Amino acid sequence: MNIDLYLKEKANLINQELDRLLPEVELKPQVLHQAMRYSVFAGGKRLRPVLFLATLDALEEPSEPYLPFACALELIHTYSLIHDDLPAMDNDDLRRGLPTSHKKFGEAQAILAGDALLTYAFKLMVSPKEKGASPEKLLAAIDEVTDGAGLKGMIVGQVLDIQAENKEIGLDELQTIHRNKTGALFAASIRSAAVLAGCNPEMLEKLTGYAENFGLAFQITDDILDVIGDTAKMGKPTGSDQEQKKITYPSFLGLERSQELARESVEKAVQYLIELPAGADPLRALARQVIDREN
Amino acid sequence: MNIDLYLKEKANLINQELDRLLPEVELKPQVLHQAMRYSVFAGGKRLRPVLFLATLDALEEPSEPYLPFACALELIHTYSLIHDDLPAMDNDDLRRGLPTSHKKFGEAQAILAGDALLTYAFKLMVSPKEKGASPEKLLAAIDEVTDGAGLKGMIVGQVLDIQAENKEIGLDELQTIHRNKTGALFAASIRSAAVLAGCNPEMLEKLTGYAENFGLAFQITDDILDVIGDTAKMGKPTGSDQEQKKITYPSFLGLERSQELARESVEKAVQYLIELPAGADPLRALARQVIDREN
Repeated sequence: MNIDLYLKEKANLINQELDRLLPEVELKPQVLHQAMRYSVFAGGKRLRPVLFLATLDALEEPSEPYLPFACALELIHTYSLIHDDLPAMDNDDLRRGLPTSHKKFGEAQAILAGDALLTYAFKLMVSPKEKGASPEKLLAAIDEVTDGAGLKGMIVGQVLDIQAENKEIGLDELQTIHRNKTGALFAASIRSAAVLAGCNPEMLEKLTGYAENFGLAFQITDDILDVIGDTAKMGKPTGSDQEQKKITYPSFLGLERSQELARESVEKAVQYLIELPAGADPLRALARQVIDREN
Repeated sequence: MNIDLYLKEKANLINQELDRLLPEVELKPQVLHQAMRYSVFAGGKRLRPVLFLATLDALEEPSEPYLPFACALELIHTYSLIHDDLPAMDNDDLRRGLPTSHKKFGEAQAILAGDALLTYAFKLMVSPKEKGASPEKLLAAIDEVTDGAGLKGMIVGQVLDIQAENKEIGLDELQTIHRNKTGALFAASIRSAAVLAGCNPEMLEKLTGYAENFGLAFQITDDILDVIGDTAKMGKPTGSDQEQKKITYPSFLGLERSQELARESVEKAVQYLIELPAGADPLRALARQVIDREN
């Protein structure tokens, strides 16, 4: 299984669909559509849509009707980045080497572009009904996403992250922040696909175990890359966590133990998939790849 | 038909349901739940949920399973006010006589409380499936709301409103702004209820005609109240439009012609309901009441 090729193919598929769903020209007001499109196409590995599609593959469910749903997950991720970068939040001027939305379009438009992406995401999640998707399953999948993006996940993580600023927190609290802020949307991407594929409760639990360990490995690797990564490949200055005295896995555990923990999490993630056939190879490879990436 | 009693009963019903859906204590992070609840319970006539329920009544559809859906409309309205009040947008310190969300909780929490209300609204819209609501109809109703709150309505109106600042605009442009910014969510409240009630396309068109004229009468009256209203009853200083040189109906048409136009819009709105039985009396009374209100 060539995971790089798989990732590339799926990312291309998602990018084509995003291009169709977020047309560049003519739509009014132009600045709103430009701002939405700008941030969505400012890079990104499309990891959440890819996890969603790889889960459908693992469960042998055709993915074509659900491409807009996969894109919705990327729109939600993008809206969260736009709002997170705002002056009142992280106040970041650059993201992936480009000016952030509020630097490019002004703060009001950035807030509204985020709001619009979130709202439009729900329109996209509804849309597979036109291609014959089961309405019951769609509703259940949308419910998964509202939890992961909202009060049982991402927004909670954002609030906890803000509360932790300039405070001494422990490893437990750090994990709670990441599990909510990043992990929950990964989990929702996987769980919503599982629900759409009509997965049984036992397998849903196992895929959730995969998702949680995937998210942990992802976050630890993020922190490690901030210490040892290459600024050019990261699209942002490395070493910034240490400068800002941010609590990270390496600052708690040291670099070596952090790398070990990331590897252990990957192995745990893969272990959860042991009953699944070859269709789950992309999910397995994705977990291994998450700690080998350079950005 | 006693419209004041009807309004009061429905608003009580909505407030009880909102109280249940947004519990005050124990949920973490507390500040997030406090901020969500604060703005939702900072007053408001619950007009969008009431229009939603009155439409169900008009079409003789039981409303009980859809109470969370009705509340979702209020959450979306509330999130839009929180974001609209932000320093980067209208920069308002007071709303309905109380400190705005960012004044009370800080800007970051206000942004996140808005995001959380919007996300949670979709969870509530999904939830009537547990009470046996048709999944197909729920998806179609959610789609109506994504349009009205998003790229075919409210957010477009916000962007147009920002673009019109410090510019000379015409009456046409003023109407386009209001139709999107305020009218579209009224229309979505009515159309989503109609879709849930299984309404036929002809009646859906008529209810949309009602909604558009209702929205117009509402907005004209808002502008008139800013000229002649009572500061205490409005919860904000009147005369502010004129001070800020905002373009309004009275500034275009004069007070008398504006009042006339509001009356005409109400009569048109009511005319659209002519085929509907006594169950539509609340919708009729609501339209008449919208120009007689004092705040």
